Amino acid sequence: MVEMIRVPVKECRTICIEAYERNGVAPEIAALATEQFILCDLLGIQTHGILRLSHYIGRLQAGGIEPATSITVDRKTPAMAIVDGGNTLGTAVAGRATEVAIEMAQEVGIAFISVKNSNHFGANASFGWGACENGVILLSGTNGSLTMPATGGKAQVVGNNPIGYAAPRKGGKHFILDFALSVQSRGKIRRAAELGETIPEGWGLDSNGMNTTDAAKVLQGFVLPVGGHKGYGLALAVDMLTGVLSGGNYAPLIKSQFYEPEKPSGICHYFICIDPDKLIGREMFQARLEAYCSWIKEQPSIDPKIPVRVPGERAAEAYAENLHKGILVDSDHHKRNQGLAKGTVKGVIPKG
Amino acid sequence: MVEMIRVPVKECRTICIEAYERNGVAPEIAALATEQFILCDLLGIQTHGILRLSHYIGRLQAGGIEPATSITVDRKTPAMAIVDGGNTLGTAVAGRATEVAIEMAQEVGIAFISVKNSNHFGANASFGWGACENGVILLSGTNGSLTMPATGGKAQVVGNNPIGYAAPRKGGKHFILDFALSVQSRGKIRRAAELGETIPEGWGLDSNGMNTTDAAKVLQGFVLPVGGHKGYGLALAVDMLTGVLSGGNYAPLIKSQFYEPEKPSGICHYFICIDPDKLIGREMFQARLEAYCSWIKEQPSIDPKIPVRVPGERAAEAYAENLHKGILVDSDHHKRNQGLAKGTVKGVIPKG
Repeated sequence: MVEMIRVPVKECRTICIEAYERNGVAPEIAALATEQFILCDLLGIQTHGILRLSHYIGRLQAGGIEPATSITVDRKTPAMAIVDGGNTLGTAVAGRATEVAIEMAQEVGIAFISVKNSNHFGANASFGWGACENGVILLSGTNGSLTMPATGGKAQVVGNNPIGYAAPRKGGKHFILDFALSVQSRGKIRRAAELGETIPEGWGLDSNGMNTTDAAKVLQGFVLPVGGHKGYGLALAVDMLTGVLSGGNYAPLIKSQFYEPEKPSGICHYFICIDPDKLIGREMFQARLEAYCSWIKEQPSIDPKIPVRVPGERAAEAYAENLHKGILVDSDHHKRNQGLAKGTVKGVIPKG
Repeated sequence: MVEMIRVPVKECRTICIEAYERNGVAPEIAALATEQFILCDLLGIQTHGILRLSHYIGRLQAGGIEPATSITVDRKTPAMAIVDGGNTLGTAVAGRATEVAIEMAQEVGIAFISVKNSNHFGANASFGWGACENGVILLSGTNGSLTMPATGGKAQVVGNNPIGYAAPRKGGKHFILDFALSVQSRGKIRRAAELGETIPEGWGLDSNGMNTTDAAKVLQGFVLPVGGHKGYGLALAVDMLTGVLSGGNYAPLIKSQFYEPEKPSGICHYFICIDPDKLIGREMFQARLEAYCSWIKEQPSIDPKIPVRVPGERAAEAYAENLHKGILVDSDHHKRNQGLAKGTVKGVIPKG
């Protein structure tokens, strides 16, 4: 039986670093990649934390990800750079890109970092959190392999391209927004298919482009963008800002980390970092953001027992709790991760 | 009977400028504001073109908008500025801010322009189009007065905060995306209420936060954000980037242009301008964007008679047609606008 356990942060960190380094990952890349896993788990985003270690190790073992390469930073202007990930772990590439973004924004007020030749980078939220801890705003996004059709189309033309918005709040309860541009994740649709459950109308189409509540048919067909043509357009805009603008791969050129794990994904990201200190001052910005957020929190909710929320509150609460009590992980995954660190088990590519 | 007629661009331009100047608007502000109206009409966005002249003139006559003031640009770094609109016409303020954004981005690669003390700015699309004609990418957004609740809330806490993404395409068929963060506009819901028609579930809530298909009840209650918590969070992020970060008004402080037309709205905008020439070169960027868009256009559609589209195609087609044939306007509106130019009729504030 699967049991949820708490594992100290330090132990999780050691396990990840050992597993990465055992598979040839350069120490600085292993450290960067591990920090993003840990941050995701601390923020309560377990789907993008150490749960993915086995998948990433699987891709390293399949030769899809370069374990030891240099992440290069090509500074084009004081406010712009292209980061070439050299096909190493996306979490490390994006971690490095965020560092550059923060450093440049603190100099000139805003920075645009365009990232190419990367892989799945985890969640926007962890990079946003890192920016907020440095007092700056981060807008970010990533492209991904094909999952969604054009409005009125019956072919996959774009990924679900998650986007993030993060702003530093006083006291560390940062504004963190991070979401994919599909109505629902393929993971949730797959679980419904495995359980034989129907899904709500609007989540996806079958392979002929017809509405269906049959999860298995959606897996053969298309996941729908959030808000119809709005989500479709926004997903394309993200690919324009990542794959097209970086000189890397845009959606039809990207390889799926699930179906072609042995090939470089070629995923691209963008990071726009803004330092409020250069505009109205950090103190002033944070006081104003706090005033607005506090006012929202005072407004009535439909269910009086469930107060309204501002994005990021749940993550900040999870962070404080998990840092203190340890990272929540199911015992099976924890055992598997220990085995990956010792080299007694292999990485496994999950179904996409 | 209302009849749609075509009026030459030059004639529309003259009418707007005369109407503005007759109401004390400074010539340079009148010219900037008129250009945005004309651009919206050319792009086929008639809801945000010369149709609004009467509303804007009504606000000038009510004393809500300053006709003659200076739009000031406070350059904070080579890549950042705060533009203070001085409460003049939002279309002029945002037009000037876009000029600054383009100029700065062409120097340093990216620019962030934070705009405060503005008014309703029309549509993101016209500013995006202007940027594209200068070869640069524009991301933009504006806050607005309260219309939407928090997820699970039953009070208005944020506006429908439209956002825009524009990228220059070869041959002028620019990528233009512009949408509000509500599922549906209040205007459409109001028309349904006036016709006594029901609206689809999911467009809005009544004043108790309950789902309803009664358009009149939604007008008393709340317009819902697109994609539930995703749209709510994104609307807040837009206000963080505009009202909070500019030092101007955020949603609860903004006055409605419909219900308090005699007061300054205090609306704020952001413009992020990116010059692809500084990253991978304009030619390269446009060739890659064209390759991706052309590939999408080749993909099959559900209805073979309705090919899939890339955002902006319809606008580009409208632009070419309207520039040649003249702006489409209903004869009543055209007469009213002629009267505004001659000073024989007053501006009218529509219902919100």
